[in-house]
Amino acid sequence: MTVRSRKSPLIVHQEQPFNAEPPGDLLRQSFLTPQKHFFIRTHGSIPAVDPASYRLLITGLVQRKRELSLDELRSMSPARTVTATLECAGNRRDELMAVKPIRGEVPWKADVIGTAKWRGVPLRAVLQAVGVEADTRYVAFTSLDEAQFEGEKVHFGSAIALEKAFTPDVLLAYKMNDELLTPEHGSPLRIIVPGYIGARSVKWLREITLQEHPSTNPYQARDYKLFPPEISAQTVDWSRGKTIEDLVLNAVITTPQEGETVAAGPTRIQGYAIAGEGTPVERVELSVDEGKTWTTANIVERADPYSWCFWEVTVALATGDCQLLVRAWDTSKQTQPEDVRQLWNFKGYMNNAWHRVKIHVS
Amino acid sequence: MTVRSRKSPLIVHQEQPFNAEPPGDLLRQSFLTPQKHFFIRTHGSIPAVDPASYRLLITGLVQRKRELSLDELRSMSPARTVTATLECAGNRRDELMAVKPIRGEVPWKADVIGTAKWRGVPLRAVLQAVGVEADTRYVAFTSLDEAQFEGEKVHFGSAIALEKAFTPDVLLAYKMNDELLTPEHGSPLRIIVPGYIGARSVKWLREITLQEHPSTNPYQARDYKLFPPEISAQTVDWSRGKTIEDLVLNAVITTPQEGETVAAGPTRIQGYAIAGEGTPVERVELSVDEGKTWTTANIVERADPYSWCFWEVTVALATGDCQLLVRAWDTSKQTQPEDVRQLWNFKGYMNNAWHRVKIHVS
Repeated sequence: MTVRSRKSPLIVHQEQPFNAEPPGDLLRQSFLTPQKHFFIRTHGSIPAVDPASYRLLITGLVQRKRELSLDELRSMSPARTVTATLECAGNRRDELMAVKPIRGEVPWKADVIGTAKWRGVPLRAVLQAVGVEADTRYVAFTSLDEAQFEGEKVHFGSAIALEKAFTPDVLLAYKMNDELLTPEHGSPLRIIVPGYIGARSVKWLREITLQEHPSTNPYQARDYKLFPPEISAQTVDWSRGKTIEDLVLNAVITTPQEGETVAAGPTRIQGYAIAGEGTPVERVELSVDEGKTWTTANIVERADPYSWCFWEVTVALATGDCQLLVRAWDTSKQTQPEDVRQLWNFKGYMNNAWHRVKIHVS
Repeated sequence: MTVRSRKSPLIVHQEQPFNAEPPGDLLRQSFLTPQKHFFIRTHGSIPAVDPASYRLLITGLVQRKRELSLDELRSMSPARTVTATLECAGNRRDELMAVKPIRGEVPWKADVIGTAKWRGVPLRAVLQAVGVEADTRYVAFTSLDEAQFEGEKVHFGSAIALEKAFTPDVLLAYKMNDELLTPEHGSPLRIIVPGYIGARSVKWLREITLQEHPSTNPYQARDYKLFPPEISAQTVDWSRGKTIEDLVLNAVITTPQEGETVAAGPTRIQGYAIAGEGTPVERVELSVDEGKTWTTANIVERADPYSWCFWEVTVALATGDCQLLVRAWDTSKQTQPEDVRQLWNFKGYMNNAWHRVKIHVS
């Protein structure tokens, strides 16, 4: 059974499975993204799960196999709250698609990203309670959803390395910004893996499996891998793709939006920026002259280490057509690549070229 | 007193202070760079220190102040060996200088980098032996050299955060590739801070100071900071620069060299690549058509996590002028910026734009 709200400000890219993102200017209105404005990425059904009868299975290389109710789970450890951004690896795919077609993927704009205050039980507390066998190297997550992968019925899933699973901020989350999770966002329980691409944070969590091998779920063993630009769907050897985990340095202009008309004179430009976990955003720069000169933006809100930051800058705009460019730098002094054409890959992942927005100044 | 070898294959940029780097094709001949081919970066004199009378001072927020002979130091802990690349933050500055002049800095080419197997006493063993007071937040290093900073007599120095000082691979090193350090490379003792720019690895180490505050040494408090492109020597507020610590993703073509003539047909191109400590080089790509298409190179030797890797790739070259381009990707799927003009900063640090080498094919 599939449920979802019919009244929503989201831009719907696909109905079945349901995939939607907010408009950028709406996204930028709140540092913590409300559930109703948070992007929805699904690969199959949106299951309607009764929290009372829900059970989480813990299987594999575990000393004590368990079937836990939500109450049992919550009694295993004090709850923990973590502010973390989730971003889809396909964020900004539409720009890659404009370079060269990408087939069978959602044409995400620059807003399949959101930040929430997640509350839940730390995964490691649960792992410690059930006992991890010595051979364990990965912790796999399987969803209650029903998806089709090349005609096969599958459940969405992922796996993370045991070291990551034992970091304190990986949560079995049941709340998002002080509200219980809605069905779209994984009710009653999802995993949250801060610092990693959204695809690892499995919703409607059915099962946690401790295992020696990496994920065999097709959504990790095959999808969400980066390939060199010369590889195509025809030539691909899936096993040679490089698994995407960490979020990458990125910056996006959310206000104004592409095609908008603004008045000449001092104009406030706003957006978000994100960086990898260990290397926070250090500087954001805006150019209105194709990168000849740059103005440093103010970072007006941030919540490191797993969260985006919000930036803004006021620049003087002269009448006519104008292209805004943004780029970020992180604390390791890394900056973003310039040209989206140089980042094309046939699955359309990880576009972090300078974001460009064309506007008209009147 | 200043000593240095007069017979050397190095390219000497400056005699006083002495600054020299190897030619790139020589650098690429050996994965571990011999001392005699290792770049020499100095800011003042090259002191001639008698190892027998040498004493290392340990001062500041320390429970037991000490003056240690080399033998006493070596008796404090088993020795440790670490393979680490040192790279100057000014590597590839000459390309930035070609964009816009940079005054008062060494015009380094792409070879002020080298890798050695360092042997020494772990810094943390010494810190534990002398006892670190609770207020300590930084560990400062001061050299025996004699330098001039804007007319003032100073010693070169740096400081690292206490957490970094307590990582196991920060060494008080006395050997480089199984040889005792030569005078140029810091004899009898230098600090090696793997993963950080070379400037933190102070040579001719006179004193270790435990302190609450960051470095006040001008070579750290003012130099080795990154400023936005719009800042100049005239407009700079030194306190606003961002301290450079981590090495940044970079890739360089060492063979052939700029201006060389090679025969048409399949040609082997070689070079090195380097990445930040937590995100090793994952892929190196070469283009001979201005970035329209890329060929993935083979990584032929590596020694993560602190070391460069060596790569090579054979490409077919047609007669005429040709520009080779290289770029690397790291495991976080970050790649390098394209255009050196976009990285200009008035001190000329951290150029990691695509490296370009123009050759003639006959």
